Amino acid sequence: MTNVAVHKGLDNIFIKHTALSNIEGDKGRLYYLGYPIEELAEYSTYEEVCFLLLNRRLPTKSELQDFARKLRKERNVPENVLKIIKELPRDAPMVSVLRASLDILSLYDGDAERNDVQAWMNVAVRIISKIATLVAAVYRLKKGLEPVDPNPSLSHSANFLYMSTGRLPTPLESKVMDVGFILHAEHELPASSTAALVVASTLSDLYSAISAGVSALKGPLHGGANERALEMLLEIGSPEKAEDYVDQQLSAGKKIMGFGHRVYKTFDPRAVIFKRYLELLSDAKKDYRFLHLANKLEEAVVRALGSKSVFPNIDLYSGPVFHLLGLEKEIFTPMFAAARSVGWIAHVLEYWEDNRLIRPRAVYVGPAPRRYVSLNERL
Amino acid sequence: MTNVAVHKGLDNIFIKHTALSNIEGDKGRLYYLGYPIEELAEYSTYEEVCFLLLNRRLPTKSELQDFARKLRKERNVPENVLKIIKELPRDAPMVSVLRASLDILSLYDGDAERNDVQAWMNVAVRIISKIATLVAAVYRLKKGLEPVDPNPSLSHSANFLYMSTGRLPTPLESKVMDVGFILHAEHELPASSTAALVVASTLSDLYSAISAGVSALKGPLHGGANERALEMLLEIGSPEKAEDYVDQQLSAGKKIMGFGHRVYKTFDPRAVIFKRYLELLSDAKKDYRFLHLANKLEEAVVRALGSKSVFPNIDLYSGPVFHLLGLEKEIFTPMFAAARSVGWIAHVLEYWEDNRLIRPRAVYVGPAPRRYVSLNERL
Repeated sequence: MTNVAVHKGLDNIFIKHTALSNIEGDKGRLYYLGYPIEELAEYSTYEEVCFLLLNRRLPTKSELQDFARKLRKERNVPENVLKIIKELPRDAPMVSVLRASLDILSLYDGDAERNDVQAWMNVAVRIISKIATLVAAVYRLKKGLEPVDPNPSLSHSANFLYMSTGRLPTPLESKVMDVGFILHAEHELPASSTAALVVASTLSDLYSAISAGVSALKGPLHGGANERALEMLLEIGSPEKAEDYVDQQLSAGKKIMGFGHRVYKTFDPRAVIFKRYLELLSDAKKDYRFLHLANKLEEAVVRALGSKSVFPNIDLYSGPVFHLLGLEKEIFTPMFAAARSVGWIAHVLEYWEDNRLIRPRAVYVGPAPRRYVSLNERL
Repeated sequence: MTNVAVHKGLDNIFIKHTALSNIEGDKGRLYYLGYPIEELAEYSTYEEVCFLLLNRRLPTKSELQDFARKLRKERNVPENVLKIIKELPRDAPMVSVLRASLDILSLYDGDAERNDVQAWMNVAVRIISKIATLVAAVYRLKKGLEPVDPNPSLSHSANFLYMSTGRLPTPLESKVMDVGFILHAEHELPASSTAALVVASTLSDLYSAISAGVSALKGPLHGGANERALEMLLEIGSPEKAEDYVDQQLSAGKKIMGFGHRVYKTFDPRAVIFKRYLELLSDAKKDYRFLHLANKLEEAVVRALGSKSVFPNIDLYSGPVFHLLGLEKEIFTPMFAAARSVGWIAHVLEYWEDNRLIRPRAVYVGPAPRRYVSLNERL
């Protein structure tokens, strides 16, 4: 048994087919259902991208109106759920509070245990819509503020930003927030989507799968990375210190947050898009600290490590963008979960079309069979 | 890309090394750390098995006393957690309520976010101990009863049975409950342990990993199976109807609950052990309905499908055993989670010794790259 190959990390092990997204890691390209991420970020909306991922085609105008209306109608979280959430400790990590909140919410959903496509779609819309409200509420509570009611006149992302900050976003802020949601909506099979699939493969329910996705996203090697990238930028402080920082980290054999990716071997296309919106936001806010610093850092890292396929990933620019939108780093991972919920659900629904229980093996390397020794005879 | 092999279900894909358990599927043997499951069930205790799995060796007498004392000390769930749990809806599935309860509990654990072996061991003991209390409390609440406080004079399993039923178990009942916990403590990498590992591989915390394990266990293809096996026995009703039932199911191309296993190609050794305890319990209770029925069913299925490697699995006999212990089927899966928590944790701790982020791939089979079509131009 010990000579069997162990696929640690499941590198390059393919566990399903998908039509949802295609990552061309060597070219730095990403598509949802064949549509380039750049075009979706520029011309589409998060609502439309959700429809696209759940139905695997773009909606007609009336379908989109209908879908957006359903999402809007589901924004409110039941009063008794909100009441319980307010009792939860506020010093715990926000992602953990979010998971508990989502789990509590699931207990009130009469469709949660149903096993038909219509129920799954209802639950999907409910989760995608309400998780944004939960994230904003948990964030406000953590800051000692009251949750803000959803605003039905705003889009999904603009409303999320409004519920989080408590103020109406400008058109540019709304657009940037929407781009953030679109760019985080789906990305094939990172650990969070994989966790959701493993859970779903037992024919457990959608909430359980999403809960596992949130659990995985919590890890610093996954969803926690953008928070740490922003911390790094704050630590470096100014553009002229970027080069020294890179030198120090590399000679100490340390990683630099916001760079490198298991799949992308060149620029992460989402980083390129976020960078442009960081420029627009920096112009609007007349605040160029992060833009200049991130640019300098990018130059230094690409010069040193570009030949080793280390390039900026989404986390380098997303943190500064969210920061300029007035969001604090505690909300980054929960917000990522809110945006990705649709990707997790879409992968689960796709997998359920031809489900197979996920049950890998481990190579046994422990002691050979031996007799149990009773406590009295034990040395 | 479409010619790449897809390892659906990860059949025979090895994702880690382990010293924890060895399943010899063709011989029907199971070992924890080299000790045959039959000997552990007969001579060991759940407390000792937990120590064994967490430390990968049997304890000395004083180590075992110390470990059992720590487990006992952790049985109480904080009052404010219990208060919130009492507010949760009682008509929701018990496993979902358990997951929410565990997630709430995690918010109160100051060690949850620490990253050192000592903290992991503290959290491990806390989860293993408290999850049993949570399961019993959620079960009692579901039945409209008040939770029962832990009894420090009882072993882990006996106390669990006491907190669930509200009455002191007989020595035989205590032993059988302990055997149930030992047999469910660890079983290599089913979907639940895999979900826990995927989450843990992001360096998320232990509670998050266990929460994902519970989510996976909820599925009818995994933890839900023993509940359905008991339902089947109740539906068949009497031994003389067993053969007809098997014929009907097989000619309708349907599965028979409690038989067959992805890894075991002969008798599941845990089924053999449970069967013996079902005999002892049936004698003690003078109630042979389930024993005779399960025996008849086993005969009929093995005769029909033994040549296809379909044999009784643990679920055929565990349901009747738990039923005779006075436990209703709603508690089966949550109780399984309580017993397996140690196996999940042990696998996570083993994986963290040489962690690698789990990030598989999907084979893209969707549309080729295409231009986004604006809503107005869309048909």
